[in-house]
Amino acid sequence: MTAAELAERFALSVHGDAGAVVSGVATLAAARPHQLAFLANSKYRNQLPGSHAGIVVLRAEDAELAPHTALVARDPYSAFAKIAALFEPRPPRPAGIHPSAAIDDSAEVSPEAHIGPFVSIGARSKIGPGCVIGPNCSIGEDCSLDADCELQARVTLVARVRLGKRVRILPGAVLGAAGFGLAMEAGKWLNVPQLGGVVVGDDCEIGANTCIDRGALDDTVLEEDVRLDNLVQIGHNVRIGAHTAMAGCSAAAGSAKIGRYCLIGGAAGVLGHLEICDKVTITAMSLVTSSIREPGEYSSGTPLTDNRTWRKNAARFKQLDALARRVGASSKETE
Amino acid sequence: MTAAELAERFALSVHGDAGAVVSGVATLAAARPHQLAFLANSKYRNQLPGSHAGIVVLRAEDAELAPHTALVARDPYSAFAKIAALFEPRPPRPAGIHPSAAIDDSAEVSPEAHIGPFVSIGARSKIGPGCVIGPNCSIGEDCSLDADCELQARVTLVARVRLGKRVRILPGAVLGAAGFGLAMEAGKWLNVPQLGGVVVGDDCEIGANTCIDRGALDDTVLEEDVRLDNLVQIGHNVRIGAHTAMAGCSAAAGSAKIGRYCLIGGAAGVLGHLEICDKVTITAMSLVTSSIREPGEYSSGTPLTDNRTWRKNAARFKQLDALARRVGASSKETE
Amino acid sequence: MTAAELAERFALSVHGDAGAVVSGVATLAAARPHQLAFLANSKYRNQLPGSHAGIVVLRAEDAELAPHTALVARDPYSAFAKIAALFEPRPPRPAGIHPSAAIDDSAEVSPEAHIGPFVSIGARSKIGPGCVIGPNCSIGEDCSLDADCELQARVTLVARVRLGKRVRILPGAVLGAAGFGLAMEAGKWLNVPQLGGVVVGDDCEIGANTCIDRGALDDTVLEEDVRLDNLVQIGHNVRIGAHTAMAGCSAAAGSAKIGRYCLIGGAAGVLGHLEICDKVTITAMSLVTSSIREPGEYSSGTPLTDNRTWRKNAARFKQLDALARRVGASSKETE
Repeated sequence: MTAAELAERFALSVHGDAGAVVSGVATLAAARPHQLAFLANSKYRNQLPGSHAGIVVLRAEDAELAPHTALVARDPYSAFAKIAALFEPRPPRPAGIHPSAAIDDSAEVSPEAHIGPFVSIGARSKIGPGCVIGPNCSIGEDCSLDADCELQARVTLVARVRLGKRVRILPGAVLGAAGFGLAMEAGKWLNVPQLGGVVVGDDCEIGANTCIDRGALDDTVLEEDVRLDNLVQIGHNVRIGAHTAMAGCSAAAGSAKIGRYCLIGGAAGVLGHLEICDKVTITAMSLVTSSIREPGEYSSGTPLTDNRTWRKNAARFKQLDALARRVGASSKETE
Repeated sequence: MTAAELAERFALSVHGDAGAVVSGVATLAAARPHQLAFLANSKYRNQLPGSHAGIVVLRAEDAELAPHTALVARDPYSAFAKIAALFEPRPPRPAGIHPSAAIDDSAEVSPEAHIGPFVSIGARSKIGPGCVIGPNCSIGEDCSLDADCELQARVTLVARVRLGKRVRILPGAVLGAAGFGLAMEAGKWLNVPQLGGVVVGDDCEIGANTCIDRGALDDTVLEEDVRLDNLVQIGHNVRIGAHTAMAGCSAAAGSAKIGRYCLIGGAAGVLGHLEICDKVTITAMSLVTSSIREPGEYSSGTPLTDNRTWRKNAARFKQLDALARRVGASSKETE
Repeated sequence: MTAAELAERFALSVHGDAGAVVSGVATLAAARPHQLAFLANSKYRNQLPGSHAGIVVLRAEDAELAPHTALVARDPYSAFAKIAALFEPRPPRPAGIHPSAAIDDSAEVSPEAHIGPFVSIGARSKIGPGCVIGPNCSIGEDCSLDADCELQARVTLVARVRLGKRVRILPGAVLGAAGFGLAMEAGKWLNVPQLGGVVVGDDCEIGANTCIDRGALDDTVLEEDVRLDNLVQIGHNVRIGAHTAMAGCSAAAGSAKIGRYCLIGGAAGVLGHLEICDKVTITAMSLVTSSIREPGEYSSGTPLTDNRTWRKNAARFKQLDALARRVGASSKETE
């Protein structure tokens, strides 16, 4: 690809040699002359003058520093993402059903879908055109996949899971398992039947080994373009608003409602039966214990220190109320 | 089912039309005339008068508010759970072995068990009558499943895992993998062989993608009716008492002993080599760092606030010991 | 094995009957006369005199207390680990390819490798001699396994994963899935292509259901002898130094660099784009939010207390800055 071709395709402007050719992408530091790199974070600006990249995607104000050809973008990171996609290997997944697949007679598989080896598909489930079902996936009863979904490998859809268009699910994810619904009776646990399903909107992406339980009566719902990282836990009847992203190891307990355009940090938790409004950011490893009604960034936890300092301070945490009372008293005395 | 039939079957009393017929269950808010709903939490009492549910299961004191037929129960949630089970779809899992299954000659599979596609069963393992082994499960050597266990899909029992009766394991769970036992020698890690197994009592339920490691010398043990949610980690030689429930993403490190009837909250952690007595509740994301000898509810962590406030307070946490000393001094000075 | 044979093999000295014979290992408390036990932690010394173990591995200073034969070691735990390995069952995994396996024509599988049932191997991937690929594993495109790797069962290597020698991966782990790289454009998420791979050094071990994402441009790297427990999350472009161990449910976010000989506690988190130097210990459930440049032990969090006490203290955490200011003022007043 030449700089000119990329500029035209992605509405960028060329600064330097429009005929510069690249055949791949790399970081500013590692790129070689036939590769394209990007500069989005000013923290890395000092790497720009010495970069060997044949083309660098960057903001207008950095163009002068580029040692070779530059492509000027308003948002270099997005522009880079789109260019890099041109160089992404796309292993062929031709339409057709692997002979080993075990497909129920009542399932409907589009002739334009790819069904890999060791895949099972249960009664009444439907696989739309363009879908790719990788090796060792198991799809249970009454599931449906709209067009162009990808289940990469050993994804399990247990029952009543409905995916929109272009949903991508990474290996090991489990959707539609029974929610953790228990009642105690006479000293023993009684399972509360989980009769709902899971509904996943268009363009959602679900990370590796992530779990999304099916609802108890109503469905568990992800609106469109929700992004879940790896090892995320979504309890039954949770609802996640469009364009919300949850980082690795985060969790939302049963019946929590998370708004649109939220960012839930790694290993953060959201308790059940509460609501988070749109555009809320929760920082890593924070715990949300009550509803949030104002957009913004929220946190809990304490800062990391060396263990000896931490022990002294943590011991004082146990006395915090007493300390505050004492200060209150002391303060009054000195007034 | 008529109200009268349900009342007789589950020892409830009818308030209203004993001939009312339902063919499914739903929430109070969503139920239609042919459906049954329940009211257990008084928070939802205001939904009762307007509900279209043909039958509502509720407590005696709420019966007057029911717009249609009511079934009066001492514990409406348990009663509802049992009624809902009547309407739960039960996909057929007929006895027999799928032709694709790879079963060792020395394994013993009951003719009354269901073995799904792409299942492997290793040497000397035994599958009892009524067991359901779903697609892509792998069972290693020397495992045994007593009657009526269910491994839903791609569950792995690595080695020396013994399940009691009616154990249910959700997709992706791994039982019997080697515990994390390491010794450092001459600057390199040395594996400590994990020669024990995993013993799971009757009626336990294990969540999706949950891991239970096998013991180093003795076994890792779950007593009967233990309930583990998804993505839970149980280290080697842990012992969990009967009827204890652990919520999603919680973890117990090696050799921890957790009592009976405990509730471990989501993402809570229990360090190794300690004991928690019976009837202890640990709230979400709390960390248990020493033994607990008194029943009750325990917590750690700090409350969520907006990030700006949190930053100010968190910075002060680092000074907490100094602050307390100062208050001690100040307090003495003012005395 | 006789005490004399073990002593010679592992360079230990016998105290007592050199002809004592054992055929297995057990704990001090449970061992019977034909079993060998060990005493490494002085906490268990009181179990020694009453132990029925035929042989006990221990330190010189404990030898006199041994009721039967003792093997004296400088590091009894390491010595025990090596002896116990002699008694570890090693299920046969003969070389050869299970007839059900689906292997791409361009893949290269050593004739000395074992490929189990329901395994798929993608284009251009290479499996070295002595490798064991257990049931239901899926290996994608462009992966390579050097000699003597073990993928126990349903491990997934998505793409561009390169394993060194003797790498062991427990069931359910996912290596090489796309990292969580997103750019927001016009109100929608845009995937940033993840073009890098995963490189795992010799002698690494990866726990059950653990995830290691592939890099965005460069690779995600584990140096040699890294040990990851179960349910660990490693983001794209993370680098983990040799001999570092991470306990269950811990996580490192994208581009974090963790040094050599570090110990990351259970459920601890490391934010992205920071560096941790060699020989750092992070205690359980702590969060590392900035780079660490000094070896040592680090912690965050608050201690566990009964919930009532915790509530009072946690409420005061929200006032901590105000409290400190007040003490500052008060302190000045009293000066």
